This record gives sequence, C-alpha cells and structure tokens, in this order.
Amino acid sequence: MKTQVAIIGAGPSGLLLGQLLQRQGIDNVILERKSGEYVLSRIRAGVLEQGMVDLLREAGVERRMDAEGLPHDGFALAFDNRHVRVDLAELTGGKRVMVYGQTEVTRDLMEAREASGGQTVYEADNVQLHDLESDAPWVTFEKNGETVRLDCDYVAGCDGYHGVSRQTIPEDRIKTFEKVYPFGWLGILSDTPPVSHELIYARHERGFALCSMRSETRSRYYVQVPLDEKVEDWSDARFWEELKCRLPDEVAAKLVTGPSIEKSIAPLRSFVAEPMQYGRLFLVGDAAHIVPPTGAKGLNLAASDVSTLYSLMCKVYHEGRSDLIERYSETCLRRVWKAERFSWWMTSMLHKFSEEEDFGARMQQAELDYVTGSRAGLTTIAENYVGLPYEALE
Amino acid sequence: MKTQVAIIGAGPSGLLLGQLLQRQGIDNVILERKSGEYVLSRIRAGVLEQGMVDLLREAGVERRMDAEGLPHDGFALAFDNRHVRVDLAELTGGKRVMVYGQTEVTRDLMEAREASGGQTVYEADNVQLHDLESDAPWVTFEKNGETVRLDCDYVAGCDGYHGVSRQTIPEDRIKTFEKVYPFGWLGILSDTPPVSHELIYARHERGFALCSMRSETRSRYYVQVPLDEKVEDWSDARFWEELKCRLPDEVAAKLVTGPSIEKSIAPLRSFVAEPMQYGRLFLVGDAAHIVPPTGAKGLNLAASDVSTLYSLMCKVYHEGRSDLIERYSETCLRRVWKAERFSWWMTSMLHKFSEEEDFGARMQQAELDYVTGSRAGLTTIAENYVGLPYEALE
Repeated sequence: MKTQVAIIGAGPSGLLLGQLLQRQGIDNVILERKSGEYVLSRIRAGVLEQGMVDLLREAGVERRMDAEGLPHDGFALAFDNRHVRVDLAELTGGKRVMVYGQTEVTRDLMEAREASGGQTVYEADNVQLHDLESDAPWVTFEKNGETVRLDCDYVAGCDGYHGVSRQTIPEDRIKTFEKVYPFGWLGILSDTPPVSHELIYARHERGFALCSMRSETRSRYYVQVPLDEKVEDWSDARFWEELKCRLPDEVAAKLVTGPSIEKSIAPLRSFVAEPMQYGRLFLVGDAAHIVPPTGAKGLNLAASDVSTLYSLMCKVYHEGRSDLIERYSETCLRRVWKAERFSWWMTSMLHKFSEEEDFGARMQQAELDYVTGSRAGLTTIAENYVGLPYEALE
Repeated sequence: MKTQVAIIGAGPSGLLLGQLLQRQGIDNVILERKSGEYVLSRIRAGVLEQGMVDLLREAGVERRMDAEGLPHDGFALAFDNRHVRVDLAELTGGKRVMVYGQTEVTRDLMEAREASGGQTVYEADNVQLHDLESDAPWVTFEKNGETVRLDCDYVAGCDGYHGVSRQTIPEDRIKTFEKVYPFGWLGILSDTPPVSHELIYARHERGFALCSMRSETRSRYYVQVPLDEKVEDWSDARFWEELKCRLPDEVAAKLVTGPSIEKSIAPLRSFVAEPMQYGRLFLVGDAAHIVPPTGAKGLNLAASDVSTLYSLMCKVYHEGRSDLIERYSETCLRRVWKAERFSWWMTSMLHKFSEEEDFGARMQQAELDYVTGSRAGLTTIAENYVGLPYEALE
C-alpha cells in the first residue's frame, strides 16, 4: 500500500486530520488498533473552542453539531456557597464555546470519512513505524493475520498517550515533562436535565466538583476523589449526596438525580513530550501532551495540533514548502505550554490538596477572590477558556 | 501615664499611625524597644503604592518625598534574555508607584512627630500588654530602670513579626498560616547609578535577580541565593558577576558596578495571623503578616492596615462608633490575602525552585509567556503592583 500521509489512530484527531487532508486532495490512510465501535464507546470531553468548531466546519462535519450542539456564552466558578459567572462572550468580544460530546464529534467524522471514501483500517494490529528519519518512511501492521506494508511521505502520530508513535522515538531524542496530581475525578453520566444550562466548576473544602452536560437531557457530573478510591464503593446515591454537598445550596436544591449510565474514575496528569516530531513523524494531541481535564483543553489542544499539521501539509503538497517541516514542533509547543499552564492553574486553584487548611488553601481562596473580583482576572480566565489564538506556522 | 491609643513600635507603621491620629486630635504614645538611630539603620523596601503616598500626604510628610522620590510609571519583567515592560500607568488608567526608601519615610515621620510634639518613648524595655479584653487595657514598660504604666483605650501592635503584640495573644485565639521559601535574597546597596530608571525583575536559570534603586545615584540589587549561603562568601566582584549573568545581555552591558555600602541576606517568608485583633489590641503590618519582597508589598500592606485602623479610630472618637471595632480584622484581611497571593505568585513565577528543569520550571516560563503576551495578563500584574483599592470599613 502507498499513501502520502499515514495517520496512526482513528480518534477525533486522526479522523479530523484525515478529513481535512482528504478535502485538499492529500491522500491519507488511517490505521486504528481497535474497532470503530470501541473508539465510539470512549466517553470523553465535551466543550469545544471556537477554533475547533471552525476546523470541524472546514472538515465539512458541522451539520449535526450546529443542530444539536449547545453554544455556551459563559460558565460559573462556585466557592464559599456562591457562584460567579465568567461571561465569556462579554469578556472576549463575542467568543464562546460549544458543548458537543467527543463521541458525537467522532461519530460525525467517521460518517464523513465513509462518505468521502477515505480509507481507515480498523483492528490494525502491531503497528510499527520504520525509517522515520529517511525521505521514505513506511509503516507495517497486521490485519487478519497478514503483515501489510504502507509506504508514505509522512506519519501523523494521533494514537494517544499509550500509542506506538511517541514510543518509537529514541529516548535520547525526546524529553518529557510530567506532573501527576494526588487525586482523580469520579464521573457519572446520567439521563437527567443538567442542574444549570452552563458548566459549574466548584471549589469546596471536601474537594472539587464539576457540573457539565452533553445535551439538554444528559448530564455529566464529577467529584474529586482520592487516587485509591474504587468505583464499586460509589453507589449512585453516595455520588449524588457527595456532589450536592460540594455545590452552593441554591444549585444543590435544583439538582435532578437519576440512575447513572456510566461511572468511572480518571486520574489527572500534566504531560508534555518535546520535541513533537522526529524525522517525518509528527506527534498530534495526546500522543505528545496530556492536560488535566479542568478547563476542558485536551481535545481542543489536539485540534490545534491538527490545524498546524494540516497547514503544514497543505504548504508541502500545494506550495512545495518542505522547508517548513522543522517548524511543526515549536509552533505547536508555544500553544501547548500555555494550555498546559491554564489547565494546571485551574486544577491547582480548585482542588483540595491536603487535609489541613493551610497556606496553600488560603492561596486558592485568595486567587478565586481576586480573579472573580477583577475584570482583568476574569478576562484571563475567559480568553484561555474560549481558546488562545492558533499559532501561525511561519 | 495615660493616652487614648498606645502604639507599640516606632517603625514606619507606628509612626504613620501616630502622626495621622495626632492630626485628628487623637492622643497617642509610641513605645519603641530600640533607639531612633537603630530604627533608621534598617534598610528595607522602597516602592510605595499610590494609596500609601496619599496616606503620607494626609499625615503631612510629603515635602521631601515629592522633591526626592522617583515616580515610576512602569517596571520590567526579564526572561529569555529579553525584557517586557509592564506599563503601569497605561494599564491601570494612570496609576503609578513612587520609589522612596523606607528609611526616608521613617526619617520624615520622625521629624514630623517631633515637630508636632507627639510623644515617643525610645529604648522602652520589656513592654507588656495587660487586660486587652477589658474596656481599660494598659501597657507597662521599663525606662531607665523604672517600670512605667501607660493606661489607654486601645493598643496598636506595630512591632513587627518578632514583637510582643502578637505573642501576647493566647495561642487558642489566633491561627497562623506560613510558607517558608527554600532560598533567600542577597542584597547590596551601592552608590552607583541604577542600570535602568525602572525596576527589573529577572527570571534566569541560575535564579532570580532584581535591579532596584533608592535614588538616581544609589542602586539596590538582589540575587536569589540558597538559604545556607554566607554573606562573607560574596565579595563585591562575585556579586556583580552573578548579577550580570542573570540579566538580559543588553541590560548587563549597561551595569555600572562599584563598592557595596551594605550587603546582607534575607530569607523569604509568607505569613498571616488570623484574626488581626484580640480585644482592644489591633495588629498592624508585619506583626500580623509577612510577604516575600517580590512585588514590594510589605510596607504598603502595613500602610493599608494603618489606614483601616486610622479610619476606625476616627469613627470611634469622632462619631462614637465603637460598634465598628469588630470589623477591623476582616476588613484588613480581605486585602492582606490578596497581597499575599500576589507576592507568592510573583515569587513562585520568578525564582528557581529546583536543580532540574522540570514541569514546574516550564510552568514558570509558560506563565511569563502568557501574562506578558496578554493585555489582561499584564493588567492583572499592573493593578496588583500599583496596589488594589483599600477596603472600606463598613
């Protein structure tokens, strides 16, 4: 087999990149280790920045998002039994975010790819990347017991934190930065109307809580829990009770509870690999960086990598500008580190870090008091939340 | 002896409070453990917020400050061999700071007190506070071997972190919050022209550095050093060399060196005691809270406590509003915690915390990149640096 761009991973990054390239006549093949059903079963983020919405539009997959997605002009920070609204639209000159689940984005992209005839190989086992530092890299994988060779010009590593792409880079050619937080998020999905039509990020002495949603009838709620907590120990009743007591009274009073349809615990991690490229391999999204979910930056950051790689490939194939290839990593990383900072900062300000009410807890309180009481402070939150501008390649 | 307000400590807070009260006809006596010369020999901060400048004006001690002080409309943040100016005036609608040494402020206040006939007892030994929870507190001290009793209505504890005032409060009536930083500041004073007419706060991989000044011919420079460093190990030549290599090249090239006239190492600490009052004792400034010097908030925060206590005493003596007394601590603490936050944040962003270039170091870099590249980010720094508004008593 032969293609221009081999894309490793059929999550939203790989599918979005594939679809964008497809529309520009740049040939690509997507290889995915799992089945399409498995990919769709992963429950993930649901808040899209304007930049990602625009990119999905450019990929031609806006129809259902425009019909079913919920544009949000603000969200709330809750603390001290009260909440302060961050008016995104007013503070950023009209920018907003779109609540539309990652699962839905993936489904739309899968359908678009099928319609456009783009090739995706699901259940591609034992993917291996070869000769990445040459002008002629190639990829091998096993399908139905056969080993297949895919020759290509470039490889896009969209295969996540545990994927083969980053692991293929020799250790002495990559440097990693990491912070693991001493807690996780216990999340549930339930077919109940959201307690508020906007997201609520709550700091409480018992720990962080988040009220989010997927639609007007499906809610997503989280509470901070210790890392060693077991999901079996959390009945729905216990979850709802814990959530209620972490929200301002007037919010808790409006909470509609119901049976959970999904319940899981996720750890929180900050991670960055530098550089984000190795020869003709480009790392995209989670393969290169992880953010804690506070601030909803993970999927959006993957989308900005996709945007950069997409621009780069267009310049390579349409303008012969292969000299720009070396700029990929530094272009992405400028924005990556700022999003890492925002996610780390939101996480640090809103979670409970130790049992005692110490100096650090007072700093969190003072930070919330200051930023919610200052227009400049609120603007820093708003402009990061809607997404900082995409970095230009040149 | 008898007075209305007994003021413990003749540093700038005690003297400023005494002078303000004096001008309102509220009788006060200042007790100071050391001599006047000793108090004047302490080298401290030199950047005054507008609010403190206004307060000094209200105390009638503006003449020399207006003639010799240097109004500053901005300062610089240096990193990555470049520097970004924080335009205080432009970002805050015309606010600025005044560079005028604490020693000078103290000298002006001492002279004004002498001229106004206010009583200050220097070398008052073994000060003790009594019956603070009654309506008739009293203070004893020893002077020339005699024990003297001073009866009063209220006691203002302006005697610093190590003073007797806070220590008199029973342990179960006060709670303290503290953070000690794993480094200190080695500072020198030299009669050389400042390298820049505005302050420069520099982050460097070897550690933090600060270029400050007392006048157009006297400079004050600092470099971050390990806590166990000894001042004897730092010749002037070694200091200048270390400073130069932490500054952007173009700044270092302009540095004029010369013999130091003072050289010392100070630890960095964040500390707050709550509440800031006990019966009829009010804690003011360093007696209740310490900030690390990054951001120049220490003296200014003492001034805002003085302002609050001054307003309170005026309301008590001129309007009979003794019901407001209980509001002192919470009024001060709202502003104290915000200044603690800013000082901690500036310190955290600009100092070197560990040997490895780890995730934390990248967060500092990302923070600097973000705040200096965002108008909202720059505004948060500027509005804190010029001083957040004083909190109203009611």
